[in-house]
Amino acid sequence: MADTVQYDTYFKENRERHLQELQAFLSIPSISSLPSHQADMERAAKWLTTELMAAGMENAIVLQTAGHPVVYAEWLNAPDKPTVLIYGHYDVQPVDPLALWDTPPFEPTIRDEKLYARGATDDKGQLFMHIKAIEALMACRGELPVNIKVCFEGEEEIASPHFEAFVAENQDLLAADVVVISDTPLWEAGQPAIYYGLKGLCGLQIDLRGQKEDLHSGFFGGLVHNPLHAMAQLLASLVAEDGRIAIEGFYDDVKSLSEEEKTAFARIPYDAEATRESLGVESLFGEPEYSALERNWARPTLDINGMWGGFQGEGTKTVIPAEAHAKITCRLVDGQVPERILEKIEQHLQKHKPAGMTVSTSWLPGKASPYSTPVSHPAIQAAARAYIATYGAEPLYTRVGGTIPAVEVFHRLMHLPIVLMGFGMPDENYHAPNEHFYLVNFDTGLRTICCFLDEIAGLTSING
Amino acid sequence: MADTVQYDTYFKENRERHLQELQAFLSIPSISSLPSHQADMERAAKWLTTELMAAGMENAIVLQTAGHPVVYAEWLNAPDKPTVLIYGHYDVQPVDPLALWDTPPFEPTIRDEKLYARGATDDKGQLFMHIKAIEALMACRGELPVNIKVCFEGEEEIASPHFEAFVAENQDLLAADVVVISDTPLWEAGQPAIYYGLKGLCGLQIDLRGQKEDLHSGFFGGLVHNPLHAMAQLLASLVAEDGRIAIEGFYDDVKSLSEEEKTAFARIPYDAEATRESLGVESLFGEPEYSALERNWARPTLDINGMWGGFQGEGTKTVIPAEAHAKITCRLVDGQVPERILEKIEQHLQKHKPAGMTVSTSWLPGKASPYSTPVSHPAIQAAARAYIATYGAEPLYTRVGGTIPAVEVFHRLMHLPIVLMGFGMPDENYHAPNEHFYLVNFDTGLRTICCFLDEIAGLTSING
Repeated sequence: MADTVQYDTYFKENRERHLQELQAFLSIPSISSLPSHQADMERAAKWLTTELMAAGMENAIVLQTAGHPVVYAEWLNAPDKPTVLIYGHYDVQPVDPLALWDTPPFEPTIRDEKLYARGATDDKGQLFMHIKAIEALMACRGELPVNIKVCFEGEEEIASPHFEAFVAENQDLLAADVVVISDTPLWEAGQPAIYYGLKGLCGLQIDLRGQKEDLHSGFFGGLVHNPLHAMAQLLASLVAEDGRIAIEGFYDDVKSLSEEEKTAFARIPYDAEATRESLGVESLFGEPEYSALERNWARPTLDINGMWGGFQGEGTKTVIPAEAHAKITCRLVDGQVPERILEKIEQHLQKHKPAGMTVSTSWLPGKASPYSTPVSHPAIQAAARAYIATYGAEPLYTRVGGTIPAVEVFHRLMHLPIVLMGFGMPDENYHAPNEHFYLVNFDTGLRTICCFLDEIAGLTSING
Repeated sequence: MADTVQYDTYFKENRERHLQELQAFLSIPSISSLPSHQADMERAAKWLTTELMAAGMENAIVLQTAGHPVVYAEWLNAPDKPTVLIYGHYDVQPVDPLALWDTPPFEPTIRDEKLYARGATDDKGQLFMHIKAIEALMACRGELPVNIKVCFEGEEEIASPHFEAFVAENQDLLAADVVVISDTPLWEAGQPAIYYGLKGLCGLQIDLRGQKEDLHSGFFGGLVHNPLHAMAQLLASLVAEDGRIAIEGFYDDVKSLSEEEKTAFARIPYDAEATRESLGVESLFGEPEYSALERNWARPTLDINGMWGGFQGEGTKTVIPAEAHAKITCRLVDGQVPERILEKIEQHLQKHKPAGMTVSTSWLPGKASPYSTPVSHPAIQAAARAYIATYGAEPLYTRVGGTIPAVEVFHRLMHLPIVLMGFGMPDENYHAPNEHFYLVNFDTGLRTICCFLDEIAGLTSING
């Protein structure tokens, strides 16, 4: 294993400057969702190319997309070594409500060893750490232990609408052995976590129609089946009383949790009772044969996201509405294919629709395949060793019920293993006022990244 | 029976003038729902008092309410005879879409023996006939066969928001033995109909809440019962698959149709197949043991008028909404009490709500009791004889699933029998462009009203 003392010292000696540079970066209001910040987005991208070149990377470039640009750079001078693709995003969320910030979101401020600013943890702070890790390794050794490509996106906070097209068009440029992303939190202080599974997503809108037009319930009461009642019956039929999804074949392709995973899940210090209390519900709900954590992380779910029909105003309107609508989405797990699930839902709807009702469906945007990398994968284990070396703690292997578009795209289009090795904390106010980043994880994380790159360099084979 | 020849001749001789006067009345745009027509409402009310006095009525007066005024007049010079209260409404619906009118709505025009104008049939035309019947009887005989009070409302088209208070405050003034209203159609040309039953109404809004706030379906999927699904289950539980209302005790107080009524219903030339086709449904729907007409006229119904919750916009939003809402109304029949039905619905909702959900309800405005007068009632039979004498046809005894607030108020507050003796036609475009009135029913109806008043005068007892 390579020497770590050199870069440890380097980080200590350069800490002030590094934090000043990060504050300069965070002071650029790179809000991707607001057209008024277009110039800031370009400024942030340009700032990154300059920083990357200064750190020792080569060919740093701002690549245009149909939306905000992607920043790319590379260092490919280790021909016998694996190539690590570092992904991050330089765009941030809006800052409303501004009045709730203790210090202005784009005037980064350090208080109590925490750096307060929009983007401090999500994701500019974490992305910046990778640049500084590269800088440190180059400064200490004159070279990197592996080949590195960086790909910093500017549209993550708006659901990466152009990232799939970008990756599809730049597969050669982005070719690598493993992707590493630092955009997730530790489990808690001092306890690292590696996210090895994300759910997929698919959804559809249901449009149900009964009689030809809205009817007066006095003149036509007792003559037709009320389409809102028919929609209620149809929606009720999707999920059984006990929480099991009642769509035929819905679970067919689900890859069951292995005994190892079940054991690992049971070891996660997840407090279901605290979750229940924070949600303000009498009890948690879902498939009875699985734990709350299993359901949330590793079982597919179906939710009605919206439903509507008829009169929503004040007072009384005695109408029998002609149509009813609903939107549903499913979170999918390993083995499930979005299109196949959508087809099964459509079959269910046609089979269970009350007699005489017409039901049409349209697939919603945002389909994503489920993603997971086995925890035994050499790249995951390399990250685990890096965490152990720097945090002194075995990482927890965790999942999340959500989707990260970039992960899904890298996995689906390029079949790459992805290491979600983050340094945030769960309480750092992502997307909220007073977003901040604990500097202890800035310091420790810089060393973890260097250690991880050395670990990758030491692998005899990167593929699991 | 009194002589009918005199007024027959009178109506023939004065037809042109009567129609000119009606056209003058119809040219006043008395649209109750539009504040810009406030002055027209007052003008119409004033016009009526002048006409009533000219016809021979006494003490005609415009009585103010919290909304549009009521026109009252009386002729009480037949001390041994019953008192007939004539109700009608002088307000009309708006005229949009104006472009679809062949002639302007407030420029009354006669084409093919039909009078086209807003209000021609609903209800200014029919109300006007009563004034002209009084005029004819007074002109021919110098007196009326019965005591008469008239009460013309100005807010029927906006659901009579102040009529209940008006009647409650003026019970002595309005005291009578029977109410007659001409605001309903014949069954078809030459076939009169007496509406002897109207349904009641009650409704409530359901507000359902699950967890404390909207949740991200990725971070919280599989943990809580989706409140929209819970609402769908709850709404589905209200009505059984076969259309029977599944609320415990809902039918308890329903007064069953008598064998006579069932036989009478079966004789109504109601074309259920034509109704089905016009509604554009595969089949009519409702309690299987009752005919469509029985369900529509004489069985209580429950309809969901609106439901909503969560995301209704374009695209995808992966939210687990915290709350869901619905509005339901019931049409009630003899024996049912709105408040008791609302309580039964509330009990059902509390009993059937999915575990952990909070359900609150609020009663909607517009409660009305069901109404019916037995067809054997002397006042109904008097109307039947009048129809036979003038149309040469036995009237059909019909019901309607809707509510007429004035009928409900007269019945509930004053316990009066009500004779719904109308002269419209089902195809006269009520509330729609090109509203019109067949003049054959103007001519015949004038004689029917006179005949009815004579029939009432001849009764030994007015109460059934």
